[in-house]
Amino acid sequence: MNDTFLKACRGEKIDYTPVWFMRQAGRYLPEYQRVRAKVDFLTLCKTPELAAEVTIQPVDILGVDAAILFSDILIPVEAMGMKLEFSELKGPVLYNPIRDDASVARLKKLTPEEDVPFVMDTIKILRKELEKKVPLIGFSGAPFTLATYMIEGGSSKNFLNTKKIMFQSPELYSKLMKKIVSAVISYLLSQIIAGAQAVQIFDSWAGVLAPDDYKEFALPYVKKIVTSLKKLYPDTPVIYFANNCAGIIKDVKKSGADVIGVDWRIDMAEAVKKIGQKAAVQGNLDPCALFLPEQELEKKVQGILLKTEDAKGHIFNLGHGILPETPVKNAIAAVEAVHKYSRKS
Amino acid sequence: MNDTFLKACRGEKIDYTPVWFMRQAGRYLPEYQRVRAKVDFLTLCKTPELAAEVTIQPVDILGVDAAILFSDILIPVEAMGMKLEFSELKGPVLYNPIRDDASVARLKKLTPEEDVPFVMDTIKILRKELEKKVPLIGFSGAPFTLATYMIEGGSSKNFLNTKKIMFQSPELYSKLMKKIVSAVISYLLSQIIAGAQAVQIFDSWAGVLAPDDYKEFALPYVKKIVTSLKKLYPDTPVIYFANNCAGIIKDVKKSGADVIGVDWRIDMAEAVKKIGQKAAVQGNLDPCALFLPEQELEKKVQGILLKTEDAKGHIFNLGHGILPETPVKNAIAAVEAVHKYSRKS
Repeated sequence: MNDTFLKACRGEKIDYTPVWFMRQAGRYLPEYQRVRAKVDFLTLCKTPELAAEVTIQPVDILGVDAAILFSDILIPVEAMGMKLEFSELKGPVLYNPIRDDASVARLKKLTPEEDVPFVMDTIKILRKELEKKVPLIGFSGAPFTLATYMIEGGSSKNFLNTKKIMFQSPELYSKLMKKIVSAVISYLLSQIIAGAQAVQIFDSWAGVLAPDDYKEFALPYVKKIVTSLKKLYPDTPVIYFANNCAGIIKDVKKSGADVIGVDWRIDMAEAVKKIGQKAAVQGNLDPCALFLPEQELEKKVQGILLKTEDAKGHIFNLGHGILPETPVKNAIAAVEAVHKYSRKS
Repeated sequence: MNDTFLKACRGEKIDYTPVWFMRQAGRYLPEYQRVRAKVDFLTLCKTPELAAEVTIQPVDILGVDAAILFSDILIPVEAMGMKLEFSELKGPVLYNPIRDDASVARLKKLTPEEDVPFVMDTIKILRKELEKKVPLIGFSGAPFTLATYMIEGGSSKNFLNTKKIMFQSPELYSKLMKKIVSAVISYLLSQIIAGAQAVQIFDSWAGVLAPDDYKEFALPYVKKIVTSLKKLYPDTPVIYFANNCAGIIKDVKKSGADVIGVDWRIDMAEAVKKIGQKAAVQGNLDPCALFLPEQELEKKVQGILLKTEDAKGHIFNLGHGILPETPVKNAIAAVEAVHKYSRKS
């Protein structure tokens, strides 16, 4: 197996920089579209054979150095008892959003093997099929990010309902976070037991918080999860991706994660300097850079590689999910450029 | 006239910290709603008596230390020949978005006195009515932000069309920016001549760019505008607000503006440290903090005041526009807290 990705996560010596892309399984691939045409999005997430199939597609097509479980961050939230739907226009919709004690009390404890067995089944299929290929990354949403969906009932512009609860009902917020943290820990442990060789915690909305609020209302819960995972599985790398992290990176690095994922709105040299030898870094190419002419794209790749030379470790990635409009050939060109320019001659 | 705001912009000694709020004239005020009920949004912007009326409302109701012209950043864009509409669901819509040379060529040169006389008329009314009250701030969108609306045809999630043009057709992008820069310079000069005592340049979308791209595709055009204004009106303060600035603040401060506006996703102490004595700062309370219980809100205000003690100057503001849901009494409480806690005893 190509273990370059796992080595980079641990800050070990490697021959070249490994690369994968957030949302690498998805709409920009015709092969994904063909599978997706047969079933709706949630059914795809819940059918192990199909979820495994689309997870592997980018490994074969792009030549990336890691696979990431195809799923949705709201899968465990649905299993906690909230009705979930995906709307073409509005994206995810969670019915009866959390606004009071009663709605928090109604949330069920997550028992992943019973509630979302299809996730573990997908992982088991994948480990067999990826055996001679690349490592498999499991994942979960971070507590604050999951809380925003549960409180807002979907995506949001200002996250006003979430912040109102944080600011006006801190006890309610902390009760909710306790339940989410416990669910995320069980969920990620089950994924590791099923075979995930690394896990990524996606804090997609961390960057909407003022730094002082991030420290109080988001970071402690991530720390708790990382500590619990590392206690039982010290060798399984944990990646923490806090989106729009430029203003909070000094705190993000205190999460305890082995790898810090950084978006594209911070200079990678600055990120590396701030993170120091505390963790490896992952990121940070602007997903729109995949629309550059090939030579310019290569320059951007080289720029990021140069800026990460002093990092404890570096996994090349985009600063956010790959866009549905991305030409596949450009994604392939980026992977090739990372491999080519990072190889020590 | 209360000139505390202007003094703070220039870094002069003041008795207390001045405060105003972005979007302080607007939907959260019942007095605004009553005016707005009579006319649609664009008509309100284009009717000097009404625009002046809503501009003054927050000065009287909240007790802020500056008024800002009520208008919309797309007003000059419409005057350059693009059809503009406001939709309840989608926000601003610009028809026939800019995608090629022909559409750039079609853009008209802006002659503010002829094309948007109502803006100058509003300013003239305001200067009379504000004579014994507070200074008037004029404003414009920044070139990159205006370009995103013109290219995307409205708001956007990923700004892919804008970045595609930047990346794939840099000559086209630069032709467009040249036209926008020239329009913004004329527009702001006309506002100053009509009576605006300070101007703010809103770069609402600067923070969607990677730092290297911000330096190449946004900052130089802002610099050009600031230089042109300062050459003719060295004493009129220029405020540059680059939203989501945490990752680009080191470059934002090179804009040449007298005051740098900062959003809430960066710690104010860090912003002040990075800006140094190069400019005064303005911001950075999370607009959602206006939903805190009064005592907690006061603490947040005090926190920001403390963090700006070493700044060249500080104008208290929110880190983004005031939210429509904001209780007026909380906005008043914030203004009072700023005045109370900043007064040197």
